[in-house]
Parts: sequence; structure tokens; C-alpha cells
Amino acid sequence: MHALEQKILNEGIVLSDKVLKVDAFLNHQIDPVLMQQIGKEFAARFKDAGITKIITIEASGIAPAVMAGLELGVPVIFARKYQSLTLKDDLYRSKVFSFTKQTESTIAISNKHLNSHDKALVIDDFLANGQAALGLADLIHQANAEVVGIGIVIEKSFQSGRQLLLDKGYRVESLARVQSLENGTVTFCRD
Amino acid sequence: MHALEQKILNEGIVLSDKVLKVDAFLNHQIDPVLMQQIGKEFAARFKDAGITKIITIEASGIAPAVMAGLELGVPVIFARKYQSLTLKDDLYRSKVFSFTKQTESTIAISNKHLNSHDKALVIDDFLANGQAALGLADLIHQANAEVVGIGIVIEKSFQSGRQLLLDKGYRVESLARVQSLENGTVTFCRD
Repeated sequence: MHALEQKILNEGIVLSDKVLKVDAFLNHQIDPVLMQQIGKEFAARFKDAGITKIITIEASGIAPAVMAGLELGVPVIFARKYQSLTLKDDLYRSKVFSFTKQTESTIAISNKHLNSHDKALVIDDFLANGQAALGLADLIHQANAEVVGIGIVIEKSFQSGRQLLLDKGYRVESLARVQSLENGTVTFCRD
Repeated sequence: MHALEQKILNEGIVLSDKVLKVDAFLNHQIDPVLMQQIGKEFAARFKDAGITKIITIEASGIAPAVMAGLELGVPVIFARKYQSLTLKDDLYRSKVFSFTKQTESTIAISNKHLNSHDKALVIDDFLANGQAALGLADLIHQANAEVVGIGIVIEKSFQSGRQLLLDKGYRVESLARVQSLENGTVTFCRD
């Protein structure tokens, strides 16, 4: 997706060979116009998939997921990383290990909003090792709903997540695929 | 805002005299069409205020804030409740006490995305005791930026937050003002 790649080149900061900081438009400050373009692109790619729900995870997944939900005309559910006072019972839960933070967290969604008739699209901001996407897919499977696909804003293609998800049979659509961050430079996959 | 009040009446759950659960469309599952309407309403109310940035807090503030940002044509910054790996330095910080959770947390935004020329609109999902809004306003003041107003999706008008914010001179615009949750019934302010 050209506009996204340009934004990454212009405003992304390469912190190391593995870490791309996009706090200027996605992970902290959010560019709503770009989010709308991202939503339209996800909707275009999945428009014939019969999606009934979008599942994402707080916090950075919410903006692109809501814009995709607006375009597809379906609700969005964001998984929480912790339990809040008003969301204690009747949860689907999954464990997600973050290689970045070296911590395991529990993610959860209410079982009230997802059922066996749902065809769910997972959306997340980043794909690196694939653990968050797998956790979200696990929540969907617990509801006996179908995982129609996984939509990613920025994929770090040099890490193992994409292949892991493909090997499990998931359709993966990443709007920007970063081949390398070496030498402080962002290079995109061209295939 | 009529559509929001109807949604609260139809899908909100009164858990107690003080707790209104809106996990069906705002705090967990999100209705993107309603969020767009909310964004348009905030934009209409603040269109002449010269806003340059919207400031919200993860996670439930993000969807309404991004839709308002889209309508107003300005970026959104969401404050984080904890520090992440790629957001360590150069932060404005504030302490926020949650009466609901009875815990204090630190909220923070990067000093890179907000400066003394900014006119900032605070947006949040709920207004109860006003502590989150005050914390966000504090972050904006630390940047020597102006707090143009505070936009709230659902105000619990029977709690002290609104008056606290008005007493400090802030303009408060709440799209739904809940007068009471007594007897399991939602009653809105009519004034």
C-alpha cells in the first residue's frame, strides 16, 4: 500500500535491525486519514469474505480495525490485555508471549459478542513473531467462529510470524511488508 | 445526541447505581457507524475552536477520538497508561487515580507530538470523577499547549467530574448526560 509505505519512509524511525518506531502515525500519535485509507484497503481485500466481526487487540489495533469495520459495515471487538471491573465473567482467554517485552500476558474477549455463526477478521498493527495474531485466532476458535483472515498494517517479514500463520492455514494480508531494517534503512518486500 | 442515547437505552446494562456497562458498542465491542456519528458530533461542536490536536487515553477513547480527528482533519494522540519499549524518553507524565479500580496509574505522552502552538481537544469515553480528563489536560499544559475543551461520550452527571472541570474553566461537551442509574434505569439530563 503506497501511502503507508511512504508514511513509513517519511516518519518511521529505525531504532535497530528489528525495531521500527511508528509513534508518529500509528502507535501513539494516529493519522486518522491514513487510518481511513488503511480501513478501505482492508475492506477491499476482504470484501468478498463474508466477514461479520473484526477482532483486534488494545491499543494500537483499534484505530485501523474500527476504520475497517466502518468500511465493511461490521462491529469491532478489541481484546483486553487485562480484565476490567465490568468485564470479569464469561471470557474467552488466551496467553500471548511478547518477545519485545519478554513477558506473557493474558488477552480476553467476552463470549457475548462472538458466536459460532461469526466469520472473523483479525486485525493488528504489527506482525513480528505472530504471537498476538495467534492469540486472537485462538479466542475466535474458542467461540467456534471462523478465522477468515489476518490483516496486518506493518509486517516485519524478516521475522517468523508470517510463515507461522501461513503454515497454520490462515490467509495473511499485510499492507506494508518490511523486508529489512538493516543499516537504519527500511526496505520493503517486492514480490 | 439522540442516536447515542438510544444505543445506551437499547444495549447499555446498568450494573449498579453508579456503573453503566456499554461493552456492546463502546468499551469492548465497538460500533464503527456510531463512532463515526460521534466523531461528526464532536467536530460540529468544536469546528470553530481552531483545534490542532486531539488527546485521548487508551483504550476506549481511541475509537471516538480517531473519528473526531478524521472529521476535524487533525492528528490524535493517545496517552498510554504504561511505558512501552519504544516510548521511554521525553515523556510528559501525570498521575491518575481511578475511583473505579481504586488504583493510581501514570499516563504519559511523548513530548515530540505536542507543542506550545497546539490547541488541543481532550476526548474520552466516560466522565465520572474527572480524574482522567484532568490528567490529560495536565499533559497538555506541560507542553504549554492550550486545552480548548473536553469532549466526553458518556457523562455520569450524578458524579462530580463535570463540575470539577467546569470549575477549572474548561469547556465540557458531553454527547450523552446520564442523570441517574437508579432502579436499574438510565435517565438522561434534560436541560
